Amino acid sequence: MSFNTFGRSFRFTTWGESHGPAIGAVVDGCPPGIALSESDIQPWLDKRRPGTSRFTTQRQEPDQVRILSGVFEGLTTGTPISLMIENVDQRSKDYSEVAQAYRPGHADYAYDAKYGFRDYRGGGRSSARETASRVAAGAVARLVIPQVQITGYVSEIGGDAIDPANFNPTEIGNNPFFCPDAKAAARWEALVDAARKDGSSLGAVVECVATGVPAGWGAPLYAKLDSELAAACMGINAVKGVEIGDGFAAARLRGEQNADPMRPGNGHTPIFLANHAGGIAGGIATGQPIRVRVAFKPTSSILIPVETVTREGEATEIRTKGRHDPCVGIRGVPVVEAMVALVLADQKLLHRAQCG
Amino acid sequence: MSFNTFGRSFRFTTWGESHGPAIGAVVDGCPPGIALSESDIQPWLDKRRPGTSRFTTQRQEPDQVRILSGVFEGLTTGTPISLMIENVDQRSKDYSEVAQAYRPGHADYAYDAKYGFRDYRGGGRSSARETASRVAAGAVARLVIPQVQITGYVSEIGGDAIDPANFNPTEIGNNPFFCPDAKAAARWEALVDAARKDGSSLGAVVECVATGVPAGWGAPLYAKLDSELAAACMGINAVKGVEIGDGFAAARLRGEQNADPMRPGNGHTPIFLANHAGGIAGGIATGQPIRVRVAFKPTSSILIPVETVTREGEATEIRTKGRHDPCVGIRGVPVVEAMVALVLADQKLLHRAQCG
Amino acid sequence: MSFNTFGRSFRFTTWGESHGPAIGAVVDGCPPGIALSESDIQPWLDKRRPGTSRFTTQRQEPDQVRILSGVFEGLTTGTPISLMIENVDQRSKDYSEVAQAYRPGHADYAYDAKYGFRDYRGGGRSSARETASRVAAGAVARLVIPQVQITGYVSEIGGDAIDPANFNPTEIGNNPFFCPDAKAAARWEALVDAARKDGSSLGAVVECVATGVPAGWGAPLYAKLDSELAAACMGINAVKGVEIGDGFAAARLRGEQNADPMRPGNGHTPIFLANHAGGIAGGIATGQPIRVRVAFKPTSSILIPVETVTREGEATEIRTKGRHDPCVGIRGVPVVEAMVALVLADQKLLHRAQCG
Amino acid sequence: MSFNTFGRSFRFTTWGESHGPAIGAVVDGCPPGIALSESDIQPWLDKRRPGTSRFTTQRQEPDQVRILSGVFEGLTTGTPISLMIENVDQRSKDYSEVAQAYRPGHADYAYDAKYGFRDYRGGGRSSARETASRVAAGAVARLVIPQVQITGYVSEIGGDAIDPANFNPTEIGNNPFFCPDAKAAARWEALVDAARKDGSSLGAVVECVATGVPAGWGAPLYAKLDSELAAACMGINAVKGVEIGDGFAAARLRGEQNADPMRPGNGHTPIFLANHAGGIAGGIATGQPIRVRVAFKPTSSILIPVETVTREGEATEIRTKGRHDPCVGIRGVPVVEAMVALVLADQKLLHRAQCG
Repeated sequence: MSFNTFGRSFRFTTWGESHGPAIGAVVDGCPPGIALSESDIQPWLDKRRPGTSRFTTQRQEPDQVRILSGVFEGLTTGTPISLMIENVDQRSKDYSEVAQAYRPGHADYAYDAKYGFRDYRGGGRSSARETASRVAAGAVARLVIPQVQITGYVSEIGGDAIDPANFNPTEIGNNPFFCPDAKAAARWEALVDAARKDGSSLGAVVECVATGVPAGWGAPLYAKLDSELAAACMGINAVKGVEIGDGFAAARLRGEQNADPMRPGNGHTPIFLANHAGGIAGGIATGQPIRVRVAFKPTSSILIPVETVTREGEATEIRTKGRHDPCVGIRGVPVVEAMVALVLADQKLLHRAQCG
Repeated sequence: MSFNTFGRSFRFTTWGESHGPAIGAVVDGCPPGIALSESDIQPWLDKRRPGTSRFTTQRQEPDQVRILSGVFEGLTTGTPISLMIENVDQRSKDYSEVAQAYRPGHADYAYDAKYGFRDYRGGGRSSARETASRVAAGAVARLVIPQVQITGYVSEIGGDAIDPANFNPTEIGNNPFFCPDAKAAARWEALVDAARKDGSSLGAVVECVATGVPAGWGAPLYAKLDSELAAACMGINAVKGVEIGDGFAAARLRGEQNADPMRPGNGHTPIFLANHAGGIAGGIATGQPIRVRVAFKPTSSILIPVETVTREGEATEIRTKGRHDPCVGIRGVPVVEAMVALVLADQKLLHRAQCG
Repeated sequence: MSFNTFGRSFRFTTWGESHGPAIGAVVDGCPPGIALSESDIQPWLDKRRPGTSRFTTQRQEPDQVRILSGVFEGLTTGTPISLMIENVDQRSKDYSEVAQAYRPGHADYAYDAKYGFRDYRGGGRSSARETASRVAAGAVARLVIPQVQITGYVSEIGGDAIDPANFNPTEIGNNPFFCPDAKAAARWEALVDAARKDGSSLGAVVECVATGVPAGWGAPLYAKLDSELAAACMGINAVKGVEIGDGFAAARLRGEQNADPMRPGNGHTPIFLANHAGGIAGGIATGQPIRVRVAFKPTSSILIPVETVTREGEATEIRTKGRHDPCVGIRGVPVVEAMVALVLADQKLLHRAQCG
Repeated sequence: MSFNTFGRSFRFTTWGESHGPAIGAVVDGCPPGIALSESDIQPWLDKRRPGTSRFTTQRQEPDQVRILSGVFEGLTTGTPISLMIENVDQRSKDYSEVAQAYRPGHADYAYDAKYGFRDYRGGGRSSARETASRVAAGAVARLVIPQVQITGYVSEIGGDAIDPANFNPTEIGNNPFFCPDAKAAARWEALVDAARKDGSSLGAVVECVATGVPAGWGAPLYAKLDSELAAACMGINAVKGVEIGDGFAAARLRGEQNADPMRPGNGHTPIFLANHAGGIAGGIATGQPIRVRVAFKPTSSILIPVETVTREGEATEIRTKGRHDPCVGIRGVPVVEAMVALVLADQKLLHRAQCG
């Protein structure tokens, strides 16, 4: 079934296709009295916006957001906030090939198998364009959790990882890769350029850290903070893996190595001597930084021909012409940040409901 | 907030603590007319049951399940199925230490931070004992999806991985590790024994494959099949990472390497030449095997002392005496299988609702 | 909390305020492959549209709906359908009085008590204008249940009821009251005119009958068909009572009078000799016509002054100037019909999920 | 589909059949730190318990509740509270007639139409016995809203209404009808006795008043306080109508009669001069008493033969032998109270989530 709503208490519903007139999100459950205007949302959309460097798709979308409801005299009213972004650059091209043949790695075949047909223009609903709606909703979520600071960055492209010793948060905004390691950013420039020129694409790993999350947010079992983060991030286009804290590396540690020992801190709040757990224990925040790692596969749209079949089941080959991101993980950074913000805003309200 | 219900159409709610009189699950939304008795559930509980080898906790629980509702004359009626498992071996020990000091890696501090206090006996609600309820519910889910075959196994313990060349599914039931590689199983025996004797613990990776899932099950965005699987698996105790298909390895491939090319198959159903995607594209099943990998951290309960603090914020040290699994990932296999079954049963019904 | 989504499987979310730029609905879960264009929705909006007779508010709204997503080449795709209606006639008037004083019978005081402030322009989110979004969503729902025929009408205004002996469904469209009794319609003209001229308002009872609902739709307990209908109708502005079948009159019958005896019909389908139950037993449709009755209070906006208080808690008096419906129940007919359609579409999909 | 969970933030799930081994409820989302033991729940179950007078069914059920989880050292822990009530007096009788023929007014035919078959023993899941689970859950809900006082009573049996002039709340506990008018109670004794001796049954109207609900609880649209109350009460067995405040009578008032004028009160809290609205405006509590009226049809089980059909579609006649309530509305009082408590507890937590 189609489930286009995410969240339990702070919820959002997105709608829209790559080549329809517009896309949007309805944010429901936002507390009243929060100052909100388009200018609180636009910077995050600009961060995700396509066409800003040669390392992203050349589709030109201004991604101007409009608030259609839920705000009165500059403050949220507690009623649903409708956000709309018009699609501008839906290039009028010939989609007959994509209409007929299934692009490997894309949702084409799966949509046809599910629904019997699909909107093939630019991927329709399965296009990463939908993530602009998440970023817009995420910008509202950030205002609900002013105590939290969320920082995302790319830590690896095409298998080339940053050097933790070079980690410098101020570098993140200085290069088109959201890369905190200036040297890695320089290497990636060549790497991504080469892939782009080959008509190929690269995968990436995005990391996101949320500081300031109070101990106690979260839930013990099926809406666990880590479970919700996993659902949120695995729901982003092209994502194939999610780790909390040390993730798979924790599976190679011994118990005493993986423990996060505590020492007396301020009052009843301990100081943790390590953070293998990524700030979450038993589904509940411990007060340490929340750490999430997300694996993005290489963009499925490539110019290198791949064997495939037509809707009628006949053999063919396809090259995905047109505009695409050589490394879709790069623009994944603001999307991961948005999803983390949305989960945390939801958990803040849920915690307040139960624990006052 | 406490959310102890999982699923949208096929749903289950679990209840119970490690040291209460019983634990259980209520399964709601199960289709009518399915043959169901305790004997359909018990084998899966037996697979997860503690105390069956020296590589698992020595707590002795018969884990006998009772069906209290929802079945009439041997068939499900379409009404909620209440499953109950009595706790038998709640050893009467002295919990004063755990009551006072926070065990690192456990949910002790987080629960106190959230709720103000906690049931400290055996971890209370945060105990992995709760997973017996999931396994019981999962056994019902399996009956809803008879077309699907679900196979879980351990692929790595303490960093020692199986050799894919030795993969033999019939081996899985021949050793106490659910290990499909007989040679690895032999090595793990020594490995886990050594950790146990050291009072330490080991992490593990569990893999699960579901075959027979029809193309089309799943959903495009926020109840994506991969997103739901991620939430389900990340919601299991001690899990820190989830991958679908190649997962993080996909982030190191180029687009043409990661593509799953298609060739003509039977009618409109293509043959896939690879399965990097793990059987899911755009959140929807492609008809290929669904592949999930799950990272379990080493058991947090260890006999090696770790620095910690008391509830009053004073420095202390704790060794987790008592019975525990030296490698909690081993008994994670039936739990991962159950969660996969529960997600797939849910998605089957959801698909039927929308697409008839 | 704000919950602007209704439905479980066929869901819709509405947004928008009386005096914002637009209002709208996102319909999620609609099956794919259904022919849908604006022309399928517009007639129902026209039926509800204000300003069409002197018996409704004089606000002039064309209520032109736009489909922004979810339809491709004239067919629903299975993805969310975004519907938008621009607000045109937000008269620029002076709202300072309403901003300061609470209109009795309106949500003014309650909104302030909940949210700390409110969008006072035309009632903001609490305006009956929101029901246009429901009517638009309901038009989509009707297409999901082509086997069902839904007919609403006004059966009573200001205590003056129709005569069942005069019931003629073709009359419903012949008068501005959706009245199936031509004689009553003539009386109501004078009645409503008089109230309007007095600056007063009248209550009404709306009845709605759905035929063609197959036996079996519905659910036994907490999503009972009658319970869902009650929630749906009690959620409409100005509604204060809901009855299924004989409703309160059933409480005055004896068991043998209230029984709906059965006789053999076509195969296993019985013929019912009565329908006191209104087509629902145990929360599940019996195959008989579903009958719902809904009580609308008189419009709270009246020109007769009423005692009230200001936001600061001081005594004052208020007359609600401006445009309003002298009998809001009249335009309630298409809204009740829409809500019934939305509930039935949802229950159809839910039934399909569980019972195949 | 089967939906056996009610509530959004404070939720409960019920399970069990009339003639199974037990029935029960799982309460999820209850705040931590509330003192709770069986003795807080038992009195409410005793109030609903069958067999306490000749005016209720003669089934003898002790209805002893057990708390199986969620409470530690006398306090709720914030985790799910599992409540179980064993069935004791499932009389071993011959159900072959009910198995074969559909009892008019019961869910027999509808269940068969939905599920293909049914548990016919005592009505199975559709038995009013399920309401014991609601009463148990409702007892927990009451503890979440100590500021609220909930009082239910019967205001009408078989069309014979109480006289408001005789209303005396202390009378409610003095007669077997929960009747606040001693004279009416005396009349009802004869009335119900006569119906019982005739093998017939009577309908009733139950009223419920909740005082102390703070202005602001509730929600504006689809989880409106009135809408939730309507769903909750219409979901009770045998209920056919729900009114808030004046209900259908409001449809016969003029605007100025139906207005609830306000005068200055304590600070910003006004004094209302009337309460036609029943304490709810725009879906949100106004701080006045919440007033709900609920219509119960006469018990469908009667000894007077009624025409019906068999499962095979053949004509027959049925008399519902065995134990039954001559007026099911009487025992509806504690059930309505419980549902009101459950809705209010939920709305309290929801309000806290959004408005802090």
